[in-house]
Amino acid sequence: MRVNYKKELEEAARNMILVHKPNTLIRMILRTIVRKVKIEHAGILLYEKSRNSFIVTVTRGQVGTKLPAGFIRLDPYAPIIRFFRQKEYRGLFDGRALIMSRINYLLSKKEMFRDDPETEKLLIAIKFQMRSFDAVVSVPCYYQDDLLGVLMLGDKVSKKSYKEEEIDFFIALANDVAMALRNAFLFEDLQLEIERNKRMFFETTMALAAAIDAKDHYTRGHTSRVTEYTLAIARLIASEANEKSDGKFFEDLHIASMLHDIGKIGVPEMILNKNGPLTDEERKKINEHSLIGAMILGPIKNLDDVILGVKHHHERHDGKGYPEGLSGEVIPYIARIISVADSFDAMTTDRPYRKAFTRDYAIIELERCSGTQFHPQVVRAAVTLYKRGELK
Amino acid sequence: MRVNYKKELEEAARNMILVHKPNTLIRMILRTIVRKVKIEHAGILLYEKSRNSFIVTVTRGQVGTKLPAGFIRLDPYAPIIRFFRQKEYRGLFDGRALIMSRINYLLSKKEMFRDDPETEKLLIAIKFQMRSFDAVVSVPCYYQDDLLGVLMLGDKVSKKSYKEEEIDFFIALANDVAMALRNAFLFEDLQLEIERNKRMFFETTMALAAAIDAKDHYTRGHTSRVTEYTLAIARLIASEANEKSDGKFFEDLHIASMLHDIGKIGVPEMILNKNGPLTDEERKKINEHSLIGAMILGPIKNLDDVILGVKHHHERHDGKGYPEGLSGEVIPYIARIISVADSFDAMTTDRPYRKAFTRDYAIIELERCSGTQFHPQVVRAAVTLYKRGELK
Repeated sequence: MRVNYKKELEEAARNMILVHKPNTLIRMILRTIVRKVKIEHAGILLYEKSRNSFIVTVTRGQVGTKLPAGFIRLDPYAPIIRFFRQKEYRGLFDGRALIMSRINYLLSKKEMFRDDPETEKLLIAIKFQMRSFDAVVSVPCYYQDDLLGVLMLGDKVSKKSYKEEEIDFFIALANDVAMALRNAFLFEDLQLEIERNKRMFFETTMALAAAIDAKDHYTRGHTSRVTEYTLAIARLIASEANEKSDGKFFEDLHIASMLHDIGKIGVPEMILNKNGPLTDEERKKINEHSLIGAMILGPIKNLDDVILGVKHHHERHDGKGYPEGLSGEVIPYIARIISVADSFDAMTTDRPYRKAFTRDYAIIELERCSGTQFHPQVVRAAVTLYKRGELK
Repeated sequence: MRVNYKKELEEAARNMILVHKPNTLIRMILRTIVRKVKIEHAGILLYEKSRNSFIVTVTRGQVGTKLPAGFIRLDPYAPIIRFFRQKEYRGLFDGRALIMSRINYLLSKKEMFRDDPETEKLLIAIKFQMRSFDAVVSVPCYYQDDLLGVLMLGDKVSKKSYKEEEIDFFIALANDVAMALRNAFLFEDLQLEIERNKRMFFETTMALAAAIDAKDHYTRGHTSRVTEYTLAIARLIASEANEKSDGKFFEDLHIASMLHDIGKIGVPEMILNKNGPLTDEERKKINEHSLIGAMILGPIKNLDDVILGVKHHHERHDGKGYPEGLSGEVIPYIARIISVADSFDAMTTDRPYRKAFTRDYAIIELERCSGTQFHPQVVRAAVTLYKRGELK
């Protein structure tokens, strides 16, 4: 039989490029091997970093032992893995494929191992391990010098031995597998780094915001609660409008919520914590916090919408808010949401001059001020959430 | 001539996988085309997002017009680009390749365009454009429906016309090019996102740290200067030790420097800004800032080394510092560096109780306290930088 793998390789090339889905490629490759070369079964062990093991990931074929995927794993000390990983052994199999008939041939040459009983023992162990996989050929998938996987191939359906060109075919495919895997790992690493960086950004920003919160004795925990409320409100509004969730918007809302009171760092502690009614001058000083917050964040790139949210979270729907007296839809959407969440939390926590109101009362207040202080749509969402018990 | 492209495609598959270097693949593909099919010259136009244009990127071949790479660009309204981008035209060339002989054939059928003079005009314009490239075949590189590039192929050296199977070969390769490009774009996007996130993290953290700085009237700009000093000192030490620069260490040092005084948020303003000598009680309160800083950052994942830097930046080499009285090499390296940079900046700026010292004097002080307050290696680096005029 002549292996016509031009077409298969071409197809592999097409699929391989979907690097973030290496399993698609690997499945296709195993299917191709099993069908074209007519093998009883084929499987692949893939290296998994997190478990530092080689796991049987994909198997194909009906005849003979078909290994269940996902259950069998080899640790780095398993004979086959040690053999493929150690460069000194590559001479024994030309760094290509381990073939059962070749192993048997080597083991029959007792004199070869007179001074090297360790290698003989290893080959015997490999023979047993290959048998446990019902494999007669196993092909390493290297990327540069890293062993990323091992192809395990059963007998041909015809029970004939494998030809040189068929082995070449397997080796070419094993190479493709290795490169697809390596690419997928690269992608995965980049994606993990993105996740890690984002988490660090959010956690650090939250920690600093909470520290600034703590200066104002009466708002402890305020920032994290407001952030929770705004995100819940925005999610509800988006789901009711059947909108696709816009990642950038939610990220901006999240950051703006965490930073909405950051400007309080610029207000004297004495005023923030004053235990009595504020003078007009003091009130004015406190009201500056939204502008100060916007100024602090001003130099940061890509934070334009966040800054607008921080700057305008004390505007009112009727235009009587500060700092610019914007009204209605002119008030940035992020600011409208923070405004409602901020007021709800302010009402339901103790203040220097009064005890906390009940949540029921706060909700009634939000509804009363809907259309004057607050944007009606946002109030509606907050009320819905409260009734569902989701505004904890 | 029979195109044997099994081998070439196999090689392409290998190279294609190096997705972050699509030009390597593209160069190889063009070389293969020019050599195997014996073409006078071949070039490729690649889409460049940032310029919203198709640029002649790689050219191969000696005979005939060889276009200079990098200079020629087509905007999205160029006839060939419009033609390949608009689905309605795909019927005219089976969505595959534009061949000069086919264009001439179509244009000879005047009756075809009786009701469609626009298409006729476009084809004439394309003919001229292909001639300006000295091309007789041009092949679009699509990924899904996006046009990512255009292959431009000159005449065969034999001047014979192209065979169907040769055109098929070009189309297969154009497909590979498109997928390699698309993968490279994906990688690039991820890498850009990582850059963007990192920048946002550093800028936001710096803005918040600077805001906290501003509370302490005497330390305005302190954080950014200390950050500059620490990074310069660490770079010098690493370069003198001929060490490979460790990204994680420099990132941690950078973050720790920005956040080293973050705990001052927990010290009453009255004490921070006191205009006179501090009582023991007040001094104790101020000294708490390194511990408070470590506590604020405590919940953040992956910040362990940063937290140690913040916590211990007031330890002394002789063990007489705070909060834990650590000494010598037991003091975390990051903290040792911040300690020197912090003191240098403190000495060279005004304080509530004294005017700024000169930089010369501050350097003498660092040297005097080397081995008692400061780690000698760090002082040496600071002195070297100062003498080079790099401790601005």
